[in-house]
Amino acid sequence: MIIMKSDATREQINNVVNEIKRLGLRADVSRGDFRTVIGLVGDESKAPFDRFATMPGVKEARMIETPYKLISREYTKLAEEESPQKVIKAGNVEIGGSELVFMAGPCAIESKAQLFKIAEGVKMAGAHVLRGGIFKPRTSVHSFQGLGGGSEEEAREALEWLRAAGDRFEMPVVTEIRGEGQVDLVADYVDIIQIGARNMYDQDLLTSIARKGKPILYKRHFGAGIEEFLSFTEYMAAEDNRDIILCERGILPLGKGRSYTRYTLDLAAVPVIQKETYLPVIIDPSHAAGRRDLIFSLSCAGIAAGACGLMIEVHYNPVEALVDGQQMITPDELKEVISTCQNIHRTIGPRKIND
Amino acid sequence: MIIMKSDATREQINNVVNEIKRLGLRADVSRGDFRTVIGLVGDESKAPFDRFATMPGVKEARMIETPYKLISREYTKLAEEESPQKVIKAGNVEIGGSELVFMAGPCAIESKAQLFKIAEGVKMAGAHVLRGGIFKPRTSVHSFQGLGGGSEEEAREALEWLRAAGDRFEMPVVTEIRGEGQVDLVADYVDIIQIGARNMYDQDLLTSIARKGKPILYKRHFGAGIEEFLSFTEYMAAEDNRDIILCERGILPLGKGRSYTRYTLDLAAVPVIQKETYLPVIIDPSHAAGRRDLIFSLSCAGIAAGACGLMIEVHYNPVEALVDGQQMITPDELKEVISTCQNIHRTIGPRKIND
Amino acid sequence: MIIMKSDATREQINNVVNEIKRLGLRADVSRGDFRTVIGLVGDESKAPFDRFATMPGVKEARMIETPYKLISREYTKLAEEESPQKVIKAGNVEIGGSELVFMAGPCAIESKAQLFKIAEGVKMAGAHVLRGGIFKPRTSVHSFQGLGGGSEEEAREALEWLRAAGDRFEMPVVTEIRGEGQVDLVADYVDIIQIGARNMYDQDLLTSIARKGKPILYKRHFGAGIEEFLSFTEYMAAEDNRDIILCERGILPLGKGRSYTRYTLDLAAVPVIQKETYLPVIIDPSHAAGRRDLIFSLSCAGIAAGACGLMIEVHYNPVEALVDGQQMITPDELKEVISTCQNIHRTIGPRKIND
Amino acid sequence: MIIMKSDATREQINNVVNEIKRLGLRADVSRGDFRTVIGLVGDESKAPFDRFATMPGVKEARMIETPYKLISREYTKLAEEESPQKVIKAGNVEIGGSELVFMAGPCAIESKAQLFKIAEGVKMAGAHVLRGGIFKPRTSVHSFQGLGGGSEEEAREALEWLRAAGDRFEMPVVTEIRGEGQVDLVADYVDIIQIGARNMYDQDLLTSIARKGKPILYKRHFGAGIEEFLSFTEYMAAEDNRDIILCERGILPLGKGRSYTRYTLDLAAVPVIQKETYLPVIIDPSHAAGRRDLIFSLSCAGIAAGACGLMIEVHYNPVEALVDGQQMITPDELKEVISTCQNIHRTIGPRKIND
Repeated sequence: MIIMKSDATREQINNVVNEIKRLGLRADVSRGDFRTVIGLVGDESKAPFDRFATMPGVKEARMIETPYKLISREYTKLAEEESPQKVIKAGNVEIGGSELVFMAGPCAIESKAQLFKIAEGVKMAGAHVLRGGIFKPRTSVHSFQGLGGGSEEEAREALEWLRAAGDRFEMPVVTEIRGEGQVDLVADYVDIIQIGARNMYDQDLLTSIARKGKPILYKRHFGAGIEEFLSFTEYMAAEDNRDIILCERGILPLGKGRSYTRYTLDLAAVPVIQKETYLPVIIDPSHAAGRRDLIFSLSCAGIAAGACGLMIEVHYNPVEALVDGQQMITPDELKEVISTCQNIHRTIGPRKIND
Repeated sequence: MIIMKSDATREQINNVVNEIKRLGLRADVSRGDFRTVIGLVGDESKAPFDRFATMPGVKEARMIETPYKLISREYTKLAEEESPQKVIKAGNVEIGGSELVFMAGPCAIESKAQLFKIAEGVKMAGAHVLRGGIFKPRTSVHSFQGLGGGSEEEAREALEWLRAAGDRFEMPVVTEIRGEGQVDLVADYVDIIQIGARNMYDQDLLTSIARKGKPILYKRHFGAGIEEFLSFTEYMAAEDNRDIILCERGILPLGKGRSYTRYTLDLAAVPVIQKETYLPVIIDPSHAAGRRDLIFSLSCAGIAAGACGLMIEVHYNPVEALVDGQQMITPDELKEVISTCQNIHRTIGPRKIND
Repeated sequence: MIIMKSDATREQINNVVNEIKRLGLRADVSRGDFRTVIGLVGDESKAPFDRFATMPGVKEARMIETPYKLISREYTKLAEEESPQKVIKAGNVEIGGSELVFMAGPCAIESKAQLFKIAEGVKMAGAHVLRGGIFKPRTSVHSFQGLGGGSEEEAREALEWLRAAGDRFEMPVVTEIRGEGQVDLVADYVDIIQIGARNMYDQDLLTSIARKGKPILYKRHFGAGIEEFLSFTEYMAAEDNRDIILCERGILPLGKGRSYTRYTLDLAAVPVIQKETYLPVIIDPSHAAGRRDLIFSLSCAGIAAGACGLMIEVHYNPVEALVDGQQMITPDELKEVISTCQNIHRTIGPRKIND
Repeated sequence: MIIMKSDATREQINNVVNEIKRLGLRADVSRGDFRTVIGLVGDESKAPFDRFATMPGVKEARMIETPYKLISREYTKLAEEESPQKVIKAGNVEIGGSELVFMAGPCAIESKAQLFKIAEGVKMAGAHVLRGGIFKPRTSVHSFQGLGGGSEEEAREALEWLRAAGDRFEMPVVTEIRGEGQVDLVADYVDIIQIGARNMYDQDLLTSIARKGKPILYKRHFGAGIEEFLSFTEYMAAEDNRDIILCERGILPLGKGRSYTRYTLDLAAVPVIQKETYLPVIIDPSHAAGRRDLIFSLSCAGIAAGACGLMIEVHYNPVEALVDGQQMITPDELKEVISTCQNIHRTIGPRKIND
């Protein structure tokens, strides 16, 4: 990281950037009101910080050991003199702002009628973003893989339904990309691109999605520590895309005997991540619990922990759903979740991040 | 489990109980308004349920496979026709009732002055129960073991301080027992006996504590599944002590890299355990987090998840504490935690357990 | 799964296959000496097994619930009347046969000279397959990403070195593919394609690699259960590629405090997987341990557990290595590992799989 | 830790020891041929090392941060100038010496006849130590708790059978103690006292067992890291009992889906622990696997990893066993395990610990 003097000229800054590029690295330039900070993207171990420190206009040059710095509050603070919470715009919705954001919809899109009926239901319940899975990651090749599991025409048709439902009910839409081959297709249709937990470590996919420049909803893998999660997030930030919504959806359960939930929701991750990074954090209680009777309590807990939103699977008739029916709630139940969460959010009020 | 007919006579019930004892098992008799249910405590596999079913007054006799039934809502329901939440009385405090209960105090008692100063602080902040460790479980024999680590007189003196502080500030008191040799001594002084996470599996200790007939605060081990936790709880219920407060305090963190918290607080355990058993559940955010800046958020989340109280470590000057200073909050911070949690509790209102 | 009668005609078999395709599923036909078994690939839940059972030539038709069946010993047995261990040919080497196979080489290829020097060393030490990383999966975008992290020309040059080193020292070569964009390029150069632990869940990558028809070395993710590992293996088998070598390389370590190894090598996975599937299993002690002083003991243990080979990172001067130097051993140490492992293998002799 | 000069007098040493005691700590004196090292047992943080350093005869005085040092190779080396492997004598058997040691017998003693028949079988098969459970730790209070679960007379009778079987077949005997109330009783009868995985953290039990001065077989908890395991071992060493055999028996399995083994055997723990401490390490494949068809492979792997022995559950007719029948092998199978393990041990030869 290279901190420029407050009176450094544009030319001096450019000289530093060019020197960085000459080393085979990329430069990330943050211009604050008072000073400019230049981050090195790539393998810093070969960078001659001693030499950088003597270049004209440079105040300080040193290696940062942390595997994530572009997304770090601490790093950003140097340039900005403060570390504002990132607010991400998707359509007419702001994620990370003063209002909670609720994303809801079917686990998998099964038909146009199913999608529109659910979209209307979640809109009425107060949701802001419509979700719907088309390329479903599945443990078994012998399970239903979503409409994206068939021909490209089927996938495109499902994407068109999703777009149309979003437009019809005035909600931005989000769907998951599972492989690099889907990036161009999906990016044309959606407002937010989801990267699922199973793809968290897939750095080539992360890079190719980030380059689309659209907001990304990025889920933590169930075996990943928080440091790993943030380190891989950095792969997207390194492509100059900081519109990243982080999502906690549960880690592997521990202990012998019957497992009462599919995963263990790690709610401490919410305040921890919010201290480490300026990116907004949401909770997915549906996949964490794997059972609908816990959604209400986990949603309340997630918001009380400080999450800025929730992603919830909804179906008008959960038993009919082809995937994950046991964890879906109805639009009526969603309405109760949303209104209680909003009350909790108001009750707690603004939170101090930096104590 | 043996369900008696609604018109079964006392003699018929006694006959069944005697037959159970003859087999080397114990009988747990629940007399409801409408019928009586007799549970078998011990190795049921040898019990001749066919023969029981033909005894006079018996309506139904069958084996229950679950490792916990005495503490189970489902089992109790058979006798009671409903499954009321257990409310446990400790001094003038009710745990599991309509009001939240806050237990607070120092991690380890260090001196009379330290204890009284903290006790006064937590009382002013709104706490209901005073905690203070005397026999401290420690990973290293080379760490401070609490005042109980010295002579018996020192331990007794510390217990007297704890009792006196509880009386002075009108709070029931709780401290941990770590070994069977401490049971008689400690039971004389405290209102609630704590069994720490590391002793969760110690069935002989559980049994000997349960026999004291006092309320027990029982913490889940950091490597234990919920089924195991409840199965070992059953060892205490089998001694006919149902005054057990269950406490979630975090399980082992998962994933590579830096660990941002000491443990992973499993908040889904709260609604899960409350569906399985009628015993009250509290949260210990201090040991789960291991850092004070997360206590507020985790406390709010725990109450929002449905916990009926919290146990929090408090010190007027955390940096002075001999044990766990980095996770303690001040009385002023406790006050803020308590008032926000009570607001959340009121906002959410009564919760449906059986949906 | 549909079992044909022993005298079923080719036409009857074709009729069944066509009916399967009509349902949008794929058919996997295993012709044994005595009977033919047809597996359904895809979402079986919609398949009308009742109707299949009445088709001419069909002996039995039923749904198989397990998420892996194409790679399962049990399933194969139906067609083959026995379940032979799969022997995979890569160049002049057989993996899964009566002789152990040792794969060795640098973690990352750094230069032609480095690669050739190590290749010669491991060949002299007795290794059979040459490994060398070009596209390195790394936790941090700020770490060296392998020569594949630069331009496509650099990646191609490194692949050419690897091919040349393999040809020069008469060893088939293996390298890792990390993203779909690398599949065509890499497949032209190598004998075995490696899929690393972090990509284990990446079903689109699995599918596109499997279609290349080359042998695959597939590593278990550090958070994956064995059932998940085999279920995702099935994605490749469903592309009609069964030349899959499974590799155990350690799961997440558990417990508080210092971690003495990078991962926990799960050696019970070796006999377990060999009972479940006919695919060969090897061990990677280098990544599991993360420290060279454990490689000898873990290698011996892996072979004693029944693994049919090892993959080991080797460098003539480990402290020079850009990646993972602390876990590399020298060619001399490799020689000792190989000869001791071969002695253990001979000492134990053939193992009974099906008891 | 205080290192005395090579010419320090006995009086100078005593002065240091007395000063340590005055601080409320205990002193552990190791007299090597060349110098004497004095370890402090207890909370070192209050020890004035500066002052110690100026006492006559003292060469060096400093705090050791590691939670285990009395059992550490590194610490011992200072006094001994080398760090010999501890060889523990139990009856006529040496554990940790040049020969492997096999401990075998029933999971639970059920009757005198059952025990004697199994004892004879394991002796014929080549076992050296007879095991038999009397106080069984069980997850459910509703399961058979061993003969120790009944009256004290039954427990005593079972202990007499065990003693008699050991004498009759010339094997030292080992059984588990689960609670402090059993220590005096059991210590009278057995040659080795076992502390089970579930009691690993029970520091009061550890202390009271260590004081009996008999060899201890101490099992790692399934949620414990190696550092924790060794830290708690230190509680026994602090009572001046170093006759401790450490046993790895599996940690919690990880990952979703079906669990193919009860626990995950962590074989890297064997070489790791042997580098950290001079205490012998054995493996219990029976509890780790939970299924008999893996015992052979895991036993071979354990010995190949460097374990100095095995503990295996044996029954002449596993399906009859009241506890854990599915993981027991027969005496004939044990014989094959023992002879193959001895061959592997000879094939590998002596191992370098300190590289």
